[in-house]
Amino acid sequence: MGITSAEEYIERIGRLKPNIYMGGEVVGRDHPALKPGLDLIVDTYERVGDKDLKGLITATSHLTGEEIHRLNHIHQSSDDLLKKQECTRLLCQKAGGCVQRCMGIDALNALTVVSKDTDDNYGTEYYPRLLEFIKYFQKNDLVGCCAQSDVKGDRSKRPFEQSDPDLYLRVIERNNKGIIVRGCKAHNSNAPYSDEIIVVPTRLMTEEDVDWSVAFSIPADTKGIKQVVRVAAPRERKYLETPQRFGLADSYTIFDDVLVPWERVFLCGETFFASFAAMLFATFHRHSYTGCKPAITDIILGATALVAEYNGVAEASHVKDKLSELIATGELVYSAGIAASVKSTVAASGTHIPNIIYTNVGRYHAGVSLYHEIETLADVAGGLPATLPMEDEFFVPELKELMDKYIMRKDGVSAEDQHRLFRGISDMICSSYGGVALVGGLHGGGSPIMEKIAIRNQYDIDYRKNLVKYLCGIKK
Amino acid sequence: MGITSAEEYIERIGRLKPNIYMGGEVVGRDHPALKPGLDLIVDTYERVGDKDLKGLITATSHLTGEEIHRLNHIHQSSDDLLKKQECTRLLCQKAGGCVQRCMGIDALNALTVVSKDTDDNYGTEYYPRLLEFIKYFQKNDLVGCCAQSDVKGDRSKRPFEQSDPDLYLRVIERNNKGIIVRGCKAHNSNAPYSDEIIVVPTRLMTEEDVDWSVAFSIPADTKGIKQVVRVAAPRERKYLETPQRFGLADSYTIFDDVLVPWERVFLCGETFFASFAAMLFATFHRHSYTGCKPAITDIILGATALVAEYNGVAEASHVKDKLSELIATGELVYSAGIAASVKSTVAASGTHIPNIIYTNVGRYHAGVSLYHEIETLADVAGGLPATLPMEDEFFVPELKELMDKYIMRKDGVSAEDQHRLFRGISDMICSSYGGVALVGGLHGGGSPIMEKIAIRNQYDIDYRKNLVKYLCGIKK
Amino acid sequence: MGITSAEEYIERIGRLKPNIYMGGEVVGRDHPALKPGLDLIVDTYERVGDKDLKGLITATSHLTGEEIHRLNHIHQSSDDLLKKQECTRLLCQKAGGCVQRCMGIDALNALTVVSKDTDDNYGTEYYPRLLEFIKYFQKNDLVGCCAQSDVKGDRSKRPFEQSDPDLYLRVIERNNKGIIVRGCKAHNSNAPYSDEIIVVPTRLMTEEDVDWSVAFSIPADTKGIKQVVRVAAPRERKYLETPQRFGLADSYTIFDDVLVPWERVFLCGETFFASFAAMLFATFHRHSYTGCKPAITDIILGATALVAEYNGVAEASHVKDKLSELIATGELVYSAGIAASVKSTVAASGTHIPNIIYTNVGRYHAGVSLYHEIETLADVAGGLPATLPMEDEFFVPELKELMDKYIMRKDGVSAEDQHRLFRGISDMICSSYGGVALVGGLHGGGSPIMEKIAIRNQYDIDYRKNLVKYLCGIKK
Amino acid sequence: MGITSAEEYIERIGRLKPNIYMGGEVVGRDHPALKPGLDLIVDTYERVGDKDLKGLITATSHLTGEEIHRLNHIHQSSDDLLKKQECTRLLCQKAGGCVQRCMGIDALNALTVVSKDTDDNYGTEYYPRLLEFIKYFQKNDLVGCCAQSDVKGDRSKRPFEQSDPDLYLRVIERNNKGIIVRGCKAHNSNAPYSDEIIVVPTRLMTEEDVDWSVAFSIPADTKGIKQVVRVAAPRERKYLETPQRFGLADSYTIFDDVLVPWERVFLCGETFFASFAAMLFATFHRHSYTGCKPAITDIILGATALVAEYNGVAEASHVKDKLSELIATGELVYSAGIAASVKSTVAASGTHIPNIIYTNVGRYHAGVSLYHEIETLADVAGGLPATLPMEDEFFVPELKELMDKYIMRKDGVSAEDQHRLFRGISDMICSSYGGVALVGGLHGGGSPIMEKIAIRNQYDIDYRKNLVKYLCGIKK
Repeated sequence: MGITSAEEYIERIGRLKPNIYMGGEVVGRDHPALKPGLDLIVDTYERVGDKDLKGLITATSHLTGEEIHRLNHIHQSSDDLLKKQECTRLLCQKAGGCVQRCMGIDALNALTVVSKDTDDNYGTEYYPRLLEFIKYFQKNDLVGCCAQSDVKGDRSKRPFEQSDPDLYLRVIERNNKGIIVRGCKAHNSNAPYSDEIIVVPTRLMTEEDVDWSVAFSIPADTKGIKQVVRVAAPRERKYLETPQRFGLADSYTIFDDVLVPWERVFLCGETFFASFAAMLFATFHRHSYTGCKPAITDIILGATALVAEYNGVAEASHVKDKLSELIATGELVYSAGIAASVKSTVAASGTHIPNIIYTNVGRYHAGVSLYHEIETLADVAGGLPATLPMEDEFFVPELKELMDKYIMRKDGVSAEDQHRLFRGISDMICSSYGGVALVGGLHGGGSPIMEKIAIRNQYDIDYRKNLVKYLCGIKK
Repeated sequence: MGITSAEEYIERIGRLKPNIYMGGEVVGRDHPALKPGLDLIVDTYERVGDKDLKGLITATSHLTGEEIHRLNHIHQSSDDLLKKQECTRLLCQKAGGCVQRCMGIDALNALTVVSKDTDDNYGTEYYPRLLEFIKYFQKNDLVGCCAQSDVKGDRSKRPFEQSDPDLYLRVIERNNKGIIVRGCKAHNSNAPYSDEIIVVPTRLMTEEDVDWSVAFSIPADTKGIKQVVRVAAPRERKYLETPQRFGLADSYTIFDDVLVPWERVFLCGETFFASFAAMLFATFHRHSYTGCKPAITDIILGATALVAEYNGVAEASHVKDKLSELIATGELVYSAGIAASVKSTVAASGTHIPNIIYTNVGRYHAGVSLYHEIETLADVAGGLPATLPMEDEFFVPELKELMDKYIMRKDGVSAEDQHRLFRGISDMICSSYGGVALVGGLHGGGSPIMEKIAIRNQYDIDYRKNLVKYLCGIKK
Repeated sequence: MGITSAEEYIERIGRLKPNIYMGGEVVGRDHPALKPGLDLIVDTYERVGDKDLKGLITATSHLTGEEIHRLNHIHQSSDDLLKKQECTRLLCQKAGGCVQRCMGIDALNALTVVSKDTDDNYGTEYYPRLLEFIKYFQKNDLVGCCAQSDVKGDRSKRPFEQSDPDLYLRVIERNNKGIIVRGCKAHNSNAPYSDEIIVVPTRLMTEEDVDWSVAFSIPADTKGIKQVVRVAAPRERKYLETPQRFGLADSYTIFDDVLVPWERVFLCGETFFASFAAMLFATFHRHSYTGCKPAITDIILGATALVAEYNGVAEASHVKDKLSELIATGELVYSAGIAASVKSTVAASGTHIPNIIYTNVGRYHAGVSLYHEIETLADVAGGLPATLPMEDEFFVPELKELMDKYIMRKDGVSAEDQHRLFRGISDMICSSYGGVALVGGLHGGGSPIMEKIAIRNQYDIDYRKNLVKYLCGIKK
Repeated sequence: MGITSAEEYIERIGRLKPNIYMGGEVVGRDHPALKPGLDLIVDTYERVGDKDLKGLITATSHLTGEEIHRLNHIHQSSDDLLKKQECTRLLCQKAGGCVQRCMGIDALNALTVVSKDTDDNYGTEYYPRLLEFIKYFQKNDLVGCCAQSDVKGDRSKRPFEQSDPDLYLRVIERNNKGIIVRGCKAHNSNAPYSDEIIVVPTRLMTEEDVDWSVAFSIPADTKGIKQVVRVAAPRERKYLETPQRFGLADSYTIFDDVLVPWERVFLCGETFFASFAAMLFATFHRHSYTGCKPAITDIILGATALVAEYNGVAEASHVKDKLSELIATGELVYSAGIAASVKSTVAASGTHIPNIIYTNVGRYHAGVSLYHEIETLADVAGGLPATLPMEDEFFVPELKELMDKYIMRKDGVSAEDQHRLFRGISDMICSSYGGVALVGGLHGGGSPIMEKIAIRNQYDIDYRKNLVKYLCGIKK
């Protein structure tokens, strides 16, 4: 136990009651449109045996002592954080993009810290409940998503100020079985592929926001949950199949008065710790980004370098400079993740929290660089990714020869390989999937403005002001 | 004559012999997938009566004295250039993007200059032929495209150095009827909707590149022409139709040994003037960009401002700063176009050429700013454009109420309008069409690196070096 | 009359009563430390005969019909604005930097518009007074400065809210002779070299700010005026004299209860028009920047190109790209000025006001680019500007030969010329004068944030929002 | 021994034979102009007792087992590298800028690696000699500089191609005593304050560059050495003394046929290892930058935050965003240094080499950010740093009261403190010293273009290309 097979996962997910809405219908997890995203999670199971990931993709549970998936582990050391970062980078490289399975465990890591601290302060009993849940989660090798972002209504107003109080998910009733919650979590990535939906608050909560200060986990097909789903996937291929076939799905997860039993409630009404949970999930998740975003840069860099070679411009100075800039972007982000891991702090729960400043500057740099990275690839690739004819034309007899003739660039590379590269790049930068990935890469884990706020709020600016006072001879 | 109706255009285009290859088939111009792009050209005809465009969308032909479409006019003054720029901006605003009809006339303007100069230097007779052609073109209110970019093979080699000499379009035979050409022009935007394909060289030609130094125009369905086409269009709507329904198409235009009669040949073998033609089409076309790109910025700006309002963050300082930056981007580009118009030069043919420096710095600024502009919109819009559920979910009875509830942001704006805006933005930034537009906006009329080269090659850098020598007291 | 000689100017300025405070002393305008800045103004007189400036540096007064200095002219047409812009660029190129004489006339242009509009609205008599003053100013070929920026105290408070009401210059008494004003104008460039100090308000005035809403002009040595002056000039040379010898001076101009006679008062208490005057001076002055800043870029560009040549890296691709970027920066700014001139509007007074959007986007682009331009020069020049030994070492016998040996870079350029260039660049980028020029180039005429505010406040953002509503199918 | 007092250092340096050329004279190390820079080195001695630096500023020599200055240590572990980075940051914070004492030890660290590897490959005896030297260096707590940058002549030519072979320092004779060298090392920071001048090659050496492939150390007053020096220091204060009083000096160090005894020669003729030494010194020194540059950012950040507070704009959103961006810049650089330390590699000599990629991306980011950081400070400070009157005016009786009145901004902060801050900032951004620091911060340890080259040459780009081939289905 602790590690299960992809088959078990597929079978288990398939048993969930249909509550996915797509295109006007309710569908099961076996709907073809969901397959590219399902395959991505399947890949995280199948990679357990991959020798490149040996020592990285598994960990030893501090609760059960069993070997578990790294993406189901509660970090017990700096080394755990370093390994999660490296594992994430490698998995994303091999999958050709985001692997989606970090959200759940990032949420659980945050909740270990918060529930323990809450218990220590208020004498509540959230932490033991959570540990039981995590044992169950690890033993069964489950997949979780993190439902954080509420739909939020008017962004200039706090939860309790909204004209509709449900625009942030809230507790509408507490009874002896549990709590009943109502609301809608947007951008809930991976929810259709998750066993469990883990809910955490989305923002700073003030004293008036008691009912909105709630965290819990429930099975993804619990009564009252409606997942309104949008999928994104690379374009289907007729002739030129590739490993870059994984997709993803986001869920507008509606909680239409859902009962959450008490043993699954990990926070309820503690506004201060709700705020902390929001911030802390963001921290763990932004640390995940210091692993996955460098992998995205690796792919952009590889594509840029390869297309430069095929185009015959690999030695152009401006191209080489752009490669250096891409490397610098990816490795600065990765460096920040390493520094955050090495300079982690230990919570009362024993969980290691990555350094918040390094984590945020890393995620911030990733977020503000991504569009420019894609621009770089587009720049070096030229116009062809946008104007490349459809696949068929390269294969129908009356055109094949002409198409193969005119796609040729670098001698010694076959027409098909040149075709494959440009089609691959076209799918990266001229597709719905590519556009979704860009927006996700910008906003996931918090938009750049949120990281800016986190950075300045957590930083010791006064230390620097006092330093300048000292240097200027200003007594204080 | 001079101005025809949209119906005449549709009827005329429909008569062209099918030579469009899409999805493995040869199709006619009436194929449904081609309609969004066709409608865009139709719009340029229908806008002739638009009162907002009065005095702008038509011009008086200097050849026939008739009223013609502005986008079929040879510029006779700075004022013509200013009007073309303004007309382009307004047309693009109303169409929600590029209007595609500039390429043909940009090519014809360039060819007036080049053919006249060639005749003056070499005693050839290209210019009278061209004038006859332009009269025909204007009288019949035709649509042209400009086939410039060759597929180019290895970019580090010149045409005559390629392992396959056909990787740049070339003359393979001259006979008493005309010339026979072979090659393939890529990124040939609007070609499926054009009456005429106007061919110009794509780069600097050296003495060895005689056979590649050719310019001409032929009907789009001439024997031997095969258009391999990729279309791009906004996603189709089931419920929420909008005016932003126009698409575009690019054509890999294969010249499979095509006979061009002499009266349609406007340059053939004059390498110096072929280079000049390449540069000059780029100049006219980059000047067009100083009209259309500000319109794109207008749309991005409007969307950013509106979504900020809907999200309740219109007064956030960082949002307001971003609006200012968008305005600055668009208006700097437009300014450069105005300056280029005002400081135009007159060629021997009487054609006004926009100032090459101002034109290029404007187009350059547009090109290097576009990804960042879209990033700004994505930043302010938040994650919803990427995760917005499908249209159906907002209309099926079991979800409509919930979806309308949870899409709400700003009070006083209907759920449908909020939905409309986010779907519109999603189509702009998370779609194939959006990705294609980005690449087009980056590379169209020449990639930023090409403008950089044009800028420094045309600029009087020595004047500045001498200025600094003077200021430093360096004689010589 | 209308044009006077440099000698007359020097003699006239020399007659002013000493009220300059520098280094703890009160000094006359003939103090040696003031000479580099005085020479700069002298240059603007001497350039009248320069053939390169023929037709640009003079204009015909619309009041007297006499030929006057362009920098003393009230703009009567777009062509006047274009000529002022061009004249400014050329003067600054030749002077090696800012020529300082624009502020006064920018203020007078603004005041013609505002005083006329005020009279038209309130029946006051400011405009005729102002015209009399301008006639006097033009006839005597005077120099003016514009005292706009108040010291401003706490920037988060308006004038009337400051704990000390004098932190914005204000009227403390009105009597039958005139008004008595108190306050201090900071950053008053060129004041020590000016015949007249022209005072305009510095910001938006509200109804409570009546006493701070004042504009006037007075002789620079009027009783009660104390100029606390800081000079900046290139380092003095012992051996290698150069034309780049001009300096500048800024004045903390204290109005220690100064009587301004009524005939010199051009606005007094009209808060709305005071706000307008502040904005309008900024507009005229920012338009001046579209002339001078391209000249600064010309110098940076020339120095970068020349040092690249001397260093042997002129053909390096990254260097050439940087030249293109410098050109783009300078010419975008210049383009914006051309567009602003061409699209000017005419005030009731007949004065042509440059288009406010184009003016501001031009000045904004200049402001946010300058540090990067200097960085580019520093980048290409290498470390030598910072570490270049003192002049003497190149001339004392025991070292001369060695120094000349080791300064050598490009063959064929003399050691002295290489020395001259690096010393010139060192003075540009590693000196007090250079630092002052950078801050001036950033903030002069208003900091980037002020231009951002002006841009978005003046722009028709609603037009763009409505455009997007239309495109999305949102009725309003 | 191992740690000596500042007095001993001063006394020892004072004994050096005068060979400093400044202003046409030969001067001793006691020349007043040299004092600000001397005081900076003195500070590194005096800080040994500083409790904030306890455990950081000293280390245990791996050669002698004695306690030595951290800046004289050969790094034996990742922890040593982390401590050097942190120590450097703290020292620079307290000194208000660069502390100059890193260059010598960075060179010695590089030479341990290179000389050992050379010995291992060629059977030479450089490493034992070097160890003897380092023991002597550590025991006597000496100060070294690193003479790396040759004057380099024409940058497009290699050493042996220069028209004057001395433009790179070279061996002109080998005899039984040692080698005789000739040449000139530019930008030799800290040389006037150093006991020892440590010479390393400056670039890649090819087979033809044998005579230029040399490394050694000699006392700074060795016969034949002429130091042509330029000092930079904050402006002197008459009234408002501050701790920010340290300066620096760069030396054009001429080797006018200098004999270096064999026991001080650490490399001579091994071109491959000379190249390695050049690269390796750069690596160690760029790692130092990941400590000092964040300190510079700390100071810029503190000054920006403090001046925002004094100006009353601390709560302006654009100001707060700028603080976040400054933090991100400094901490990304610092993160990269941490990552480089943690991921160090061990050389055959036992020396820990910081990871070359992280080191270079950190230094690169620092270099390309610095001008913008200073721009940010200038932006928030406003124009006053450029126009602030001289100190005297704030103290002479007739002006003091007025000056104190008009410098006031934030209530509750004394006029003197406001004055102090703006004078401090003026000295940072509007002074020769500030300009020199900018150029130094850009080019020190290698210009951005050099780091770009290092980054791409050392990075496994093929791994990323193969990754993309895999993802696109391209075999091979």
